[in-house]
Amino acid sequence: MTRAVVLLSGGLDSSTVLAMARQEGFELYAMTFRYGQRHAVEIESARQVARNARVADHVIVDIDLRTFGGSALTSDTAVPKGEPADAARGIPITYVPARNTIFLSFALAWAEVLGAHDIYIGVNAVDYSGYPDCRPAYIAAYERMAQLATRTGVEGQALRIRTPLIDKTKAEIIRVGTSLGVDYAETTSCYDPSPDGTSCGECEACRLRLKGFHEAGLEDPIRYRHPERASAKDLL
Amino acid sequence: MTRAVVLLSGGLDSSTVLAMARQEGFELYAMTFRYGQRHAVEIESARQVARNARVADHVIVDIDLRTFGGSALTSDTAVPKGEPADAARGIPITYVPARNTIFLSFALAWAEVLGAHDIYIGVNAVDYSGYPDCRPAYIAAYERMAQLATRTGVEGQALRIRTPLIDKTKAEIIRVGTSLGVDYAETTSCYDPSPDGTSCGECEACRLRLKGFHEAGLEDPIRYRHPERASAKDLL
Repeated sequence: MTRAVVLLSGGLDSSTVLAMARQEGFELYAMTFRYGQRHAVEIESARQVARNARVADHVIVDIDLRTFGGSALTSDTAVPKGEPADAARGIPITYVPARNTIFLSFALAWAEVLGAHDIYIGVNAVDYSGYPDCRPAYIAAYERMAQLATRTGVEGQALRIRTPLIDKTKAEIIRVGTSLGVDYAETTSCYDPSPDGTSCGECEACRLRLKGFHEAGLEDPIRYRHPERASAKDLL
Repeated sequence: MTRAVVLLSGGLDSSTVLAMARQEGFELYAMTFRYGQRHAVEIESARQVARNARVADHVIVDIDLRTFGGSALTSDTAVPKGEPADAARGIPITYVPARNTIFLSFALAWAEVLGAHDIYIGVNAVDYSGYPDCRPAYIAAYERMAQLATRTGVEGQALRIRTPLIDKTKAEIIRVGTSLGVDYAETTSCYDPSPDGTSCGECEACRLRLKGFHEAGLEDPIRYRHPERASAKDLL
């Protein structure tokens, strides 16, 4: 079986990507990062999602992005509540400097050791249009660099960064995942969950998720801290 | 003062690069990795070199590349003794998969937080011609990707990966460093040092270093385990 490395955060997007890579027939090698994020509960979600997808291997890589700061997700800065990211308003404070570049670089190292030529990442240019490292031009440049960086490329073989969600809306992602049997009850999206893992329902990630389920005509199976505020109705 | 991030291993090359960046007038932010390398003594060298260069900050980043294996430098595979790397014989087993890509990605994150637009790395395409991630084409592709990855690039500012050693011989590097006051007694190059930090004198890195000092007409100030075998004469 051909191997693929899949970056898996435990969130809705990457869990869908894992199912899509499986559908493509790859043997799955899932990689998750403990990077000092406030929402470390997503690592438990990643474990559960990886187990259910019967991946060949799942590594949790420890890196400390708090050394640098620079983001609400890795510091004590308050996570903003309210509107989703919007490119017109600049780069959101939940952007973590060079995060996807770091994640892809570890995936590249593992892919090289495994002899895998495919790396899946659940970036999305629709909802995260304000994040530089979610844009198609960035991914294309990364892929070209990766070809030159590794043994695989030197030996003339392809190295592909696969981004099957890049131009999908959240509702489309949820529909694809549902059709592939993803159990979204196991996934975590919230940037600011309670210690028991309950989502806030108010941050950018929760609002995008709730809006997605609403537009897909499906019920979000996870629990929210403020169910009355977590209604998707006022998000549309 | 304009800031620059400098990747500093504690070896001869990166210590020279640090002095060159200082000479260019940058305020220096040195970054060193503890990545599961066998030759961890080089981290102490990096501390000493950074202290003497009066850097504004020096971070030691912990990452565990042993999770993947794939290299003699991060596993129990024996470090080869004898001839230096040679592209004609393929990629050496001391190559660490995607190492420079991972290192540069952390440097990119820090540069973004610091507002630095310059990242220095001591890659060399002469002695390490067998390493894919030491080639000029790789560095150019990385720089292009980095422009697209970050806030700096989005805001239309340059992001430069500076490789002042890329086409220099070891002797040229040593001459430049000596003229800039680098104390090579503080640097460590050996892939397989004794616990007390003494270099073996036989591995690829020691042989390249000894040959460089010999060609530069200078004496290498560090100690070797087998002084009789460490003579540069039979390397030429």
